[in-house]
Amino acid sequence: MDEIHPQHQLHHLDEGGLRVPVTAISLADSPDGTQNADVHVYRTAGPGSDPTDGLAPRRAEWIAAREDVEEYAGRERQLADDGRSAVRRGEASAAWRGARRTPLRAREGRRVTQMHYARNGITTPEMEFIALRENVDVELVRSEIAAGRAIIPANINHPESEPMIIGRRFLTKVNANIGNSAITSSIAEEVEKLTWATRWGADTVMDLSTGDDIHTTREWIMRNAPVPIGTVPIYQALEKVNGEAHKLTWEIFRDTVIEQAEQGVDYMTIHAGVLLRYVPLTANRVTGIVSRGGSIMAGWCLAHHRESFLYEHFDELCEIFAQYDVAFSLGDGLRPGSVADANDEAQLSELRTLAELTERAWAYDVQVMVEGPGHVPLDLVEENVRLQQEWCHGAPFYTLGPLVTDIAPGYDHITSAIGAAVIAQHGTAMLCYVTPKEHLGLPNRDDVKTGVITYKIAAHAADVAKGHPGARVRDDAMSKARFEFRWHDQFALALDPETAMAYHDETLPAEPAKTAHFCSMCGPKFCSMRISQDIRDAYADEMREGMDQKSKQFVEFGARVYLDESQAADLVSDPA
Amino acid sequence: MDEIHPQHQLHHLDEGGLRVPVTAISLADSPDGTQNADVHVYRTAGPGSDPTDGLAPRRAEWIAAREDVEEYAGRERQLADDGRSAVRRGEASAAWRGARRTPLRAREGRRVTQMHYARNGITTPEMEFIALRENVDVELVRSEIAAGRAIIPANINHPESEPMIIGRRFLTKVNANIGNSAITSSIAEEVEKLTWATRWGADTVMDLSTGDDIHTTREWIMRNAPVPIGTVPIYQALEKVNGEAHKLTWEIFRDTVIEQAEQGVDYMTIHAGVLLRYVPLTANRVTGIVSRGGSIMAGWCLAHHRESFLYEHFDELCEIFAQYDVAFSLGDGLRPGSVADANDEAQLSELRTLAELTERAWAYDVQVMVEGPGHVPLDLVEENVRLQQEWCHGAPFYTLGPLVTDIAPGYDHITSAIGAAVIAQHGTAMLCYVTPKEHLGLPNRDDVKTGVITYKIAAHAADVAKGHPGARVRDDAMSKARFEFRWHDQFALALDPETAMAYHDETLPAEPAKTAHFCSMCGPKFCSMRISQDIRDAYADEMREGMDQKSKQFVEFGARVYLDESQAADLVSDPA
Repeated sequence: MDEIHPQHQLHHLDEGGLRVPVTAISLADSPDGTQNADVHVYRTAGPGSDPTDGLAPRRAEWIAAREDVEEYAGRERQLADDGRSAVRRGEASAAWRGARRTPLRAREGRRVTQMHYARNGITTPEMEFIALRENVDVELVRSEIAAGRAIIPANINHPESEPMIIGRRFLTKVNANIGNSAITSSIAEEVEKLTWATRWGADTVMDLSTGDDIHTTREWIMRNAPVPIGTVPIYQALEKVNGEAHKLTWEIFRDTVIEQAEQGVDYMTIHAGVLLRYVPLTANRVTGIVSRGGSIMAGWCLAHHRESFLYEHFDELCEIFAQYDVAFSLGDGLRPGSVADANDEAQLSELRTLAELTERAWAYDVQVMVEGPGHVPLDLVEENVRLQQEWCHGAPFYTLGPLVTDIAPGYDHITSAIGAAVIAQHGTAMLCYVTPKEHLGLPNRDDVKTGVITYKIAAHAADVAKGHPGARVRDDAMSKARFEFRWHDQFALALDPETAMAYHDETLPAEPAKTAHFCSMCGPKFCSMRISQDIRDAYADEMREGMDQKSKQFVEFGARVYLDESQAADLVSDPA
Repeated sequence: MDEIHPQHQLHHLDEGGLRVPVTAISLADSPDGTQNADVHVYRTAGPGSDPTDGLAPRRAEWIAAREDVEEYAGRERQLADDGRSAVRRGEASAAWRGARRTPLRAREGRRVTQMHYARNGITTPEMEFIALRENVDVELVRSEIAAGRAIIPANINHPESEPMIIGRRFLTKVNANIGNSAITSSIAEEVEKLTWATRWGADTVMDLSTGDDIHTTREWIMRNAPVPIGTVPIYQALEKVNGEAHKLTWEIFRDTVIEQAEQGVDYMTIHAGVLLRYVPLTANRVTGIVSRGGSIMAGWCLAHHRESFLYEHFDELCEIFAQYDVAFSLGDGLRPGSVADANDEAQLSELRTLAELTERAWAYDVQVMVEGPGHVPLDLVEENVRLQQEWCHGAPFYTLGPLVTDIAPGYDHITSAIGAAVIAQHGTAMLCYVTPKEHLGLPNRDDVKTGVITYKIAAHAADVAKGHPGARVRDDAMSKARFEFRWHDQFALALDPETAMAYHDETLPAEPAKTAHFCSMCGPKFCSMRISQDIRDAYADEMREGMDQKSKQFVEFGARVYLDESQAADLVSDPA
């Protein structure tokens, strides 16, 4: 695939044949001749999509070598899996044309989850891969997985994925949501959004499709996804009952979960914490229930006046998840939809139930993360992650934002990045992105990019704040490039090189300006970076000379530092 | 001037003839018929610019009534005030055409600062105006000013300004920087940027011009500014010595300060904390000195090998400031330019000197705020404001960002909004905006808007977090409008109505969609807000009915909630 900048190159850390992909950013020498080492950046883009054949199943060998899975016929594909239009037409649109693998599941009596292996002291290739990728000891990976404090979403039917880890001791991850809806968008667009999102740094992608062609869209996505894919199976289940929530049953839901597990979905949002007695707690909220899944389940509970099938059949779900290594993303169906509703009794009651469900899943060696809000004022953000970590025994927290104010639709990537950075600093393991279109419409390609980059900023700010080993390498390389006016290196080191260069060129478009030792903010005369360099040179010399001598020199020097315009022009053509 | 949305109207809080402008946002009734009160929003836009005559001098009467000022001839205007091009041409370009007032200064032996009045128990009209504007008791205003914990930047020669306050007990303020440079931009553009910035919510504007026509540009800005204007006088002084820093003298600097004080500049950044012994502390930094003013003064100190004229003549500066009520913005010339350099010895040493200077200024009843960084990792942000507040006895802190990572040029409004929200939450009183062009180029009109709105978000998030009285009114009104699908009200309540509506219309352009009880994110069938409303209705009824009965009803009801597409179409045309 195309790299996002000419100085970026796909490079592999090749230990024990693992070939962990990183982006190597090459840098120019410093003006004093010092060579600057390549900066290696965590890479989520994979080898790029392959719409014809799909990606290579890089994990297939590892999975087979464990000898605990079997091929089986799998659930029979039904037209209704793609919604009512497919049934009407008698066919799904744009069926996947690439290879179809026979589904795998655990052999009778086996559990094939990374947590199961970790608890039994087994270090898997997935863990080794992650240790290299995160630049940490593999034993940290294994022990955090064993303790439930981290997860590796890695369905055995998604061998195309490059293993990654979600946990507070590791780099903060970013999820991007894609998916068609009843209103807009096509399968091709969704695959394109997947590739686009991972290119800019999305660590996982959730397919939240709710319209037609759900099954087929997901097949295209799975086969082209180098990152774990998450879903909310209740959306598809609801399509199967014609959108009538009260007609949902455990059987229909279970069937949908198996359908998706066979396709390779790595984690599923399950709103099993919406208990009947919590629903009235939302009645006096400013914004009621804002989670789609939460409102569907609340509607179901009310209609049947009993606990949901998700809660009642939770152990069966665990058994299924253990057969494929699907991870739970325990959904916060009662999350607040406004700062007014943050940290209220509805939200916290559900969180206590999610804590209970976490332990129930762990009893089956099933991996779990817990979802969190949403909309939270800045002063309550830390409490959210503190309570979740305490109550849920350290299970990874996965939050949407949170947005710290409600008054900026059109800018909610920013309102939420503030909350996201702070909540990640305090221990949230993965952040679900928010795009500028939040509350207003469906994100297009540009919105996806803006959302991902904004969330890479939040995640990275948290990693730097947490002192994650090596997190600041890129910052420091950027700062050095800035100080030395290596403009091309500044662009190359930026999260979004194109935009950085375009903005630079708006004011100073000519190529010489990119080697000029000043920039448009101050112009050549006032450049504080240049003056600093002079100070540095002066103090380097000072060891050898008396100060009086020095200050005389500096005057002469100064007369050279503050150039007039003709001298500045010389500088541009001769940066030495 | 044009309002930013048809539902916005200029309204005046009219107590005691003060006529405090607010923006009144009118709202539609709720679906149940409840009337929704207008939301009053703090308004910075003033009456709009008047490029011909300038704004009306609304404070002139108040100033005169105190009988402590006198008109005087003022400093004679020199061509060099507008730079070398003006000298060459023999005239300044585009001289101000509107009214010129004779400058005022304090009568012999008088101090005309708001701090002086406050300390003497006098409540000025400026304080009364602010109390209404901030919805607080006037005694809080007076006592915070008297204690030095807040300032009212209000030069007696800038009677056009609408009084505002900067202090941690009040709404967090946002400053926008404008100004021409050697490279680009014209006077008309700068006035346009001023009007544009205040329209979107800038509370103060700094004119950081460094190129030609500095004096004239500033005159145009001052006469059209409903908000306080700040400057960095060393920039102009440096122009007067042909850009050769070591030729700067106290006399030239003092002359420039008086020139600007007579024009009405409300606060001036003075880098008097850059002491000779601190300069070597920057030599081993990753990014040295990044403040223009800081590097100019460091260069001067090195060239002369003595303390700067700013530090040595600080008391004389105080005497001048007290004559016009110019406030100090004590510049952090040694602020870090990268997260690597944050909270280092150079930065903190200078802060200790700024604390000393704060007390020296207070001895003259001169108002003071203290500037802060810059680039700070998230884990060190709070410490910055804590130390500043402690060392500087609560003098208002005024920070640039801070940026919490260095790797996102093109998005530094976002990297810095994260730091800004957090530092404001912990007590920073004013935030200097950062635009998307930071580190890359000069902001254009769109960048100014994006920068201001991003910083209104950060400031507002902090005000909500601090529990500022009434801060959440707009959030709650927005959330209620969201829950009730009052789309036009959502746009009207947004910080940027145009963008919010444009984004909405990208997915659902038709007018009926703006009264539809769903949005494009979920489509009509899945709308969680609708389901919540149904839950609310259900529980309202429940008091009157048994639960079994209810659950049966809900099934029938549910069948109506999850509509098919033809029913959804009905919904659009008939929102009832």
